[in-house]
Amino acid sequence: MKTTRLEAFSDGVIAIIITIMVLELKVPHDHTIAGLVAMWPTFFSYGLSFLLVAIYWNNHHHLVHLARRVDPGMMWANMNLLFWLSLVPFSTAYLGEHHASALAVAVYGANAALCGMSFYLLRHTIACHSYDDPKVAHLHQSMLRKNRIAIAIYLVAAGVSFLSPWLALALILTPAVMYFIPDRKVEKLQHD
Amino acid sequence: MKTTRLEAFSDGVIAIIITIMVLELKVPHDHTIAGLVAMWPTFFSYGLSFLLVAIYWNNHHHLVHLARRVDPGMMWANMNLLFWLSLVPFSTAYLGEHHASALAVAVYGANAALCGMSFYLLRHTIACHSYDDPKVAHLHQSMLRKNRIAIAIYLVAAGVSFLSPWLALALILTPAVMYFIPDRKVEKLQHD
Amino acid sequence: MKTTRLEAFSDGVIAIIITIMVLELKVPHDHTIAGLVAMWPTFFSYGLSFLLVAIYWNNHHHLVHLARRVDPGMMWANMNLLFWLSLVPFSTAYLGEHHASALAVAVYGANAALCGMSFYLLRHTIACHSYDDPKVAHLHQSMLRKNRIAIAIYLVAAGVSFLSPWLALALILTPAVMYFIPDRKVEKLQHD
Amino acid sequence: MKTTRLEAFSDGVIAIIITIMVLELKVPHDHTIAGLVAMWPTFFSYGLSFLLVAIYWNNHHHLVHLARRVDPGMMWANMNLLFWLSLVPFSTAYLGEHHASALAVAVYGANAALCGMSFYLLRHTIACHSYDDPKVAHLHQSMLRKNRIAIAIYLVAAGVSFLSPWLALALILTPAVMYFIPDRKVEKLQHD
Repeated sequence: MKTTRLEAFSDGVIAIIITIMVLELKVPHDHTIAGLVAMWPTFFSYGLSFLLVAIYWNNHHHLVHLARRVDPGMMWANMNLLFWLSLVPFSTAYLGEHHASALAVAVYGANAALCGMSFYLLRHTIACHSYDDPKVAHLHQSMLRKNRIAIAIYLVAAGVSFLSPWLALALILTPAVMYFIPDRKVEKLQHD
Repeated sequence: MKTTRLEAFSDGVIAIIITIMVLELKVPHDHTIAGLVAMWPTFFSYGLSFLLVAIYWNNHHHLVHLARRVDPGMMWANMNLLFWLSLVPFSTAYLGEHHASALAVAVYGANAALCGMSFYLLRHTIACHSYDDPKVAHLHQSMLRKNRIAIAIYLVAAGVSFLSPWLALALILTPAVMYFIPDRKVEKLQHD
Repeated sequence: MKTTRLEAFSDGVIAIIITIMVLELKVPHDHTIAGLVAMWPTFFSYGLSFLLVAIYWNNHHHLVHLARRVDPGMMWANMNLLFWLSLVPFSTAYLGEHHASALAVAVYGANAALCGMSFYLLRHTIACHSYDDPKVAHLHQSMLRKNRIAIAIYLVAAGVSFLSPWLALALILTPAVMYFIPDRKVEKLQHD
Repeated sequence: MKTTRLEAFSDGVIAIIITIMVLELKVPHDHTIAGLVAMWPTFFSYGLSFLLVAIYWNNHHHLVHLARRVDPGMMWANMNLLFWLSLVPFSTAYLGEHHASALAVAVYGANAALCGMSFYLLRHTIACHSYDDPKVAHLHQSMLRKNRIAIAIYLVAAGVSFLSPWLALALILTPAVMYFIPDRKVEKLQHD
């Protein structure tokens, strides 16, 4: 199997995940502006998940490009990532409908942590085949460290949600910001 | 990242957006022709959004072909466009279910304006990298002007909807007609 | 625009149309075999539409391969076809939920006729650019004739449905059989 | 028709099937952990079907790569497979909502058996065109045998479900494990 086909299938699945979430935005029965404003937790969770999945798509692309070939281990590590990403529309709907209750934020944080762990596993699987190139190995080590921090933040958020759901949501946003801001060191490694 | 992959992902998302809108066409409980006829606002908003998204797909293709490479700025400007386009099925369902009420038309117009602004931003991002080719720069300037007019019409429509929803809907249709009719000047620029 | 991109986008839309129809197969509340058996009109209309859309995908592929380039006329003729195809999940749900009532069969037949007419228009648009090759022109003429027969049958079916829905459904199945059975003459033209 | 296009369309359909199943995971009205825990049959059937469809995607890829060209027979054998796979979201929802009742497990087992039979038919169609290469013919024979075992297990499971739904579910999981564990003999044949 070539990496291009794994990438095309993953792209398809991620494109569907990011798009079908809109089906959870149900038209409110209340025909007033108040009815729309009352939907804000749903819009917020929609925007948050769109950003989360968009970042995964971007990182997934850069990661798969570092792979030379697809072995069964990488195939299943990738499927495992797609599985946890495919649950994001459910966690998003749960977060939106339960108006950021402690449990809803914890479920969302746990889903984010599981996606992060799956991405870590996928990178680890790919990194094992590139020991010979010290620059690529260094890039992988750097990204794995960033990934570990993101997982830790998601897990802390899932726990903190029972104390303060809003603090937990702020924590869940942190890795998104962290990945959104271009990383000079990593960019240098990628372009060298 | 190559432009082909950005294009393939965007195509996938746009294909899903344009198709899942049909899930909002619920089968009426009334088994008569009157039951079908009563659905006309839903059919109308479906057709309008299909046309809108189809025009974006067409323009997106022509725009991305003018880009040389994908930098993070362009990646995120594109994601921003896909985000606002992904809300079109919601605005469409809102317009259909609320039978073209003033608020529903305003929401639809605002969504259309935000899509237009995102497209403007994407073109602006891409245009910044093509200063050296005067013909391409001229084409971008010409299209940015057309884009500004469309945004202005959508914003006026969103405001006018509270006075006359029907006039507002007619205004929302104008940019579609404007983009549908081939533009001789632009076509000449594209083929030169 | 290259034909490959038009084809990729159309493929994506058709793949989504053929797949989201399953979302209309709602799990029955009755937990018995009788509950499943009572769903047969839904299963029947699902199977019928799957066959219909699959045949369109197959024919669309063969048709687009005969096009040399994509002009705006062909782009919009193709979008028009995708629009009517995108309504098939609605007609299918209507046919399934209204248990093959006269009106439901007429709606389905009318949708099928509109898809047929759109395909005819698309082939006609493409055929206009291939006057110079007599073999391709001959193939197009032959297929346009077959297409006209299919449209006529669908229109007759839509009318007949008010006399006998079952006869109308049998008529709607006829073009599917007609396109399913390989056409020796056309195959010969394609391989020459 | 080239095998790449058949593969791209099949990939699209399989990506949609595997992803839209999440729409059946409805947010529970009960806002407690108990409400989530009560959803376990739905989560279980979701995970089971994700694994099942992922294995089909993987095997489909390896199979289509052995085909030289696409004839109408292979086209329709492939469409037949996609048809039965497209029913998996329905069987999954049925299994989840009916909490693994005898009938629900039987329906799921029957769907799995029909997918297995369709895959068998597709491989048989492709194998007919590769008599000349003894290694490929040997690989096909080996895989057809494995396929026959999987179909037999699914059929036994569908029958056993009326005696013990849990034993039937365990049986349904067996082929997944069987295909998940890399097959040394087949791998050797593939790499030779």
